[in-house]
Amino acid sequence: VEWVEIQRGLVIYICFFKGADEDLVPKIVNMLLNVKLSENESGEYVSVLDLPGDVLIIPQATLGGKAKGRKMQYHANIEKEKGLELYSQFVTVCEKELAANAKCMEAGVLVKHGTYGNRQVLKLDTNGPYTHLIEF
Amino acid sequence: VEWVEIQRGLVIYICFFKGADEDLVPKIVNMLLNVKLSENESGEYVSVLDLPGDVLIIPQATLGGKAKGRKMQYHANIEKEKGLELYSQFVTVCEKELAANAKCMEAGVLVKHGTYGNRQVLKLDTNGPYTHLIEF
Repeated sequence: VEWVEIQRGLVIYICFFKGADEDLVPKIVNMLLNVKLSENESGEYVSVLDLPGDVLIIPQATLGGKAKGRKMQYHANIEKEKGLELYSQFVTVCEKELAANAKCMEAGVLVKHGTYGNRQVLKLDTNGPYTHLIEF
Repeated sequence: VEWVEIQRGLVIYICFFKGADEDLVPKIVNMLLNVKLSENESGEYVSVLDLPGDVLIIPQATLGGKAKGRKMQYHANIEKEKGLELYSQFVTVCEKELAANAKCMEAGVLVKHGTYGNRQVLKLDTNGPYTHLIEF
């Protein structure tokens, strides 16, 4: 059993739909690392790169579910192999973006991630849940 | 400072958009309490009423945000007063539904909720995050 942990930062739940491709990955990463979702010491909202903060990436295919009657169906989700490929690229691009950011490097912030397609436990501790949905 | 806590069950993050009204509340509650999102001891998916499990309701207006450039905007969200009204009704209807369910009453399951419009801390512990988005 492996356990990853981040400190203050951004938790990303990611789900790929059918039709998603490699070109989309840098766009998503760029958006998520630059959108102002993190509160700094002065109470201003800044990006996780500007905070700077850690990033935890969680594969969450269930986000692609649609309720049909009392059951959830996942027909819109990408095929598992392609999803794994995009997920791995997503993690790699995030790592590169943080590594290319001087503020992040200086602060020693981390990118951690879950493994695709496996059940994983999660413990989350927030000082105000601040959940957003961003579609691409 | 008040702290509420649930055991095994369902965590609901709720956000009301402009145009939501009272008629919608029982429909949402009925759906969320009956959709099969909870894993029982045998690994089958059942509703939170059938589990039976606790319910934690968290007001989460940020879910209504849309990214505009690098900032989130919340123009689609309902006005604060109306949102509070619907949120209170939502909590009440959930409580009634659980109280009307023999299995839930026997098991002594709980409905707990956050307060609307205030910052609240959250600690979450899952045995596999299993996040779904259900729109009404």
